[in-house]
Amino acid sequence: MKLNELRQAAREIVSAALKSVDPETLIHRMVRLEDGRLAIGANSVDLSGFRKILVVGAGKAGAAMAKAIESILGDRVNGGLVIVQDGNRSPLKKLELAEAGHPVPDERGVEAAGRILSLLQDHANANTLVLCLISGGGSALMSLPASAIPLSAKQQTTGLLLRCGATVDEINIVRKHISKIKGGQLARAAFPAKLFSLILSDVIGDQIEVIASGPTVGDPSTFSDAVAVLKKHEVWEQTPTTVREFLEKGLRGEIPETPKPGERIFENVCNVIIGSNRTAVESASKRASSLGFHSLVLSTRICGEAREVGGIFASIAIESEISGYPIAPPACILAGGETTVTVRGEGKGGRNQELALSAAIRLAGARRIVVASVGTDGADGPTDAAGAVVDTTTLERAKRLELDPAQYLRNNDSYHLLAPIGDLVITGPTGTNVMDLIVALIG
Amino acid sequence: MKLNELRQAAREIVSAALKSVDPETLIHRMVRLEDGRLAIGANSVDLSGFRKILVVGAGKAGAAMAKAIESILGDRVNGGLVIVQDGNRSPLKKLELAEAGHPVPDERGVEAAGRILSLLQDHANANTLVLCLISGGGSALMSLPASAIPLSAKQQTTGLLLRCGATVDEINIVRKHISKIKGGQLARAAFPAKLFSLILSDVIGDQIEVIASGPTVGDPSTFSDAVAVLKKHEVWEQTPTTVREFLEKGLRGEIPETPKPGERIFENVCNVIIGSNRTAVESASKRASSLGFHSLVLSTRICGEAREVGGIFASIAIESEISGYPIAPPACILAGGETTVTVRGEGKGGRNQELALSAAIRLAGARRIVVASVGTDGADGPTDAAGAVVDTTTLERAKRLELDPAQYLRNNDSYHLLAPIGDLVITGPTGTNVMDLIVALIG
Repeated sequence: MKLNELRQAAREIVSAALKSVDPETLIHRMVRLEDGRLAIGANSVDLSGFRKILVVGAGKAGAAMAKAIESILGDRVNGGLVIVQDGNRSPLKKLELAEAGHPVPDERGVEAAGRILSLLQDHANANTLVLCLISGGGSALMSLPASAIPLSAKQQTTGLLLRCGATVDEINIVRKHISKIKGGQLARAAFPAKLFSLILSDVIGDQIEVIASGPTVGDPSTFSDAVAVLKKHEVWEQTPTTVREFLEKGLRGEIPETPKPGERIFENVCNVIIGSNRTAVESASKRASSLGFHSLVLSTRICGEAREVGGIFASIAIESEISGYPIAPPACILAGGETTVTVRGEGKGGRNQELALSAAIRLAGARRIVVASVGTDGADGPTDAAGAVVDTTTLERAKRLELDPAQYLRNNDSYHLLAPIGDLVITGPTGTNVMDLIVALIG
Repeated sequence: MKLNELRQAAREIVSAALKSVDPETLIHRMVRLEDGRLAIGANSVDLSGFRKILVVGAGKAGAAMAKAIESILGDRVNGGLVIVQDGNRSPLKKLELAEAGHPVPDERGVEAAGRILSLLQDHANANTLVLCLISGGGSALMSLPASAIPLSAKQQTTGLLLRCGATVDEINIVRKHISKIKGGQLARAAFPAKLFSLILSDVIGDQIEVIASGPTVGDPSTFSDAVAVLKKHEVWEQTPTTVREFLEKGLRGEIPETPKPGERIFENVCNVIIGSNRTAVESASKRASSLGFHSLVLSTRICGEAREVGGIFASIAIESEISGYPIAPPACILAGGETTVTVRGEGKGGRNQELALSAAIRLAGARRIVVASVGTDGADGPTDAAGAVVDTTTLERAKRLELDPAQYLRNNDSYHLLAPIGDLVITGPTGTNVMDLIVALIG
């Protein structure tokens, strides 16, 4: 296959993957109303058993998910509130969309999260059906610090943990214990209502207790664990007083624990993952096959330094071109996940652009290979691009413009190399997020 | 398959791979004497056409390669000299083995390389068959600076280039132009003899001009390129005077260029790769299949930061366990290449041990996965281990001894974690080197 055909195929494969994780598409595939029964995945409830249907939630895909739910349930929805990113407030009939800050939480999110909690506490009962729409970014958008803790103190604590090298799991233990809504507490507020949480996963491994900090999932960790995390990383002394006092109260049993897995309040809760990185990767694979490629999915759990992943991906693609391992050309090798960038330079770029640029450099000498890396949310770092599609002529095209790829990579400046040579992928915000998609095509 | 069965299988697969790249085995497979004809791979020469057979060469596998050649040719060999690492001087009948310094070249290597060049210049003619035995490490072992350049000046120049971030290709351009034997110059000395170079590849992509700096391969680069490399990296001024003066003489045409590809002297030269990383990886794959695993070779060109490669390898193995991508259990996922370690800590370890430890950390929560990473030369960093074999219980076993894997990894101290828990692979020196082998088994 010719290089320009491969590039075209790469864009088609990426498009097919993005389309498959469109939140409206996913909700319509997973949620159906038939003969007065609402089917959600393998579950089904008789709507005549409920007096009220409330819809709550938060996340980057919230607007589209809410729109789809409203289009399915129509006037049966009594009301609700979904917290979304700025710029997503297309008007709905019954549901309110509240904009809030992301990735840095703000008071608008706190206020809206408080209203969600009140709505559930005051209006949800045994005759209520609650649909909770959860997607990536929900943790920041639906931020509700425990009483007596200002939002700034909560953020300061998260900042301390991030800087001291705590793991994501450790950070979540602390965050859930200084929040009023995370770690199953939204579900507690809804009890004894019937609660379906429809979850679009944006985390590796699709752990429902991690996505948006698991507002509808039991939390096995304790106040004691939270204090231990802060002490282990030696940031307890720097932790804001309001946070320390709150956690100490928790230790003394003066504040209720987060609800634990297996607690009675979860009997009425059903968490359903409606889409994930795998959805995107499998759709990409399907489209690649229909375009005539031998398709191989490596993993949906790729993480690590973006430039390293790009290099390894290129190494595998070159092997395919040369020896037919791990799959013979025309081949499509796919992966998903989310890489990170250790910023050392001062340029502009994103993890997907950096991954692609690094792959392009490693492709030196190869013949007909295209590598694309794209963030499914359409936003890669602080750029207008979703990612990039490079190939075995990228180095040559850069050279013609007297751009040195190695130098741009060193300076974390992938954007300024990829933009002028036309290797960016620009989709605009997609309204969804299932992490990133990496595609290598070998012609 | 049970975990201890997987561990046993991993060790068997590694053993099969190592055995397949034993230099004696490889020489015997590639070189045959039948009815007075010497067959080397697809080539064959009538020995009656030659009055003399000389054997020269250098490299870590030199001793074993020389032994095998002598056992095939017996008294037909007239003499020769192969430069080997210290400790490899098992006596042969007709061939001399000369020990020299590695990885830092020393005067013994210079002296021996000079003797090889003289032997060829003085004794090789149109009636001579020369067999050149090349393997990894040959570049340091067979170091022969151009006249007027002391060994120390040559080393200083290489050191400058390494520190300023020059690429391997760039360093080789300079090294070939301040050497008397690299970059095709050994072949020039042997001309017009018939020359077979038997090459055991220790580089990614098996580029014969790179292995041992290509003593029998045409060199497209020029004195002008060499000077340009030193100037580009702004180390020309610091380059020792003897080196600068020599290169400037070369620029003025007062010193002959390295022989170029296509030159007449290469008409009688045949370079044959007798083994490479692919040999090891394919043998591992074959053994895995015979043990009942679905086997998948990802790439023989893996490079990059060891811990990142380990993480990605684990991500792919976990995906196999969970979803059956890219291949369903019982699965064996294989790769080869050579990673690097950016040393930040002060511990003891090697790239394979660090790769394995990083994989073990990423395997947290997985069920039945084993990952082995082994240097085929039997030496991983400054340790007595060849590498390590970790599994989904490695973290637990470390915990029992109160060892924190993340901390050991941060300190580049993989050896001191893997040794006490019994996860090292110790083979002793194998007498071969085709880079590293990575094996993941999913039960």
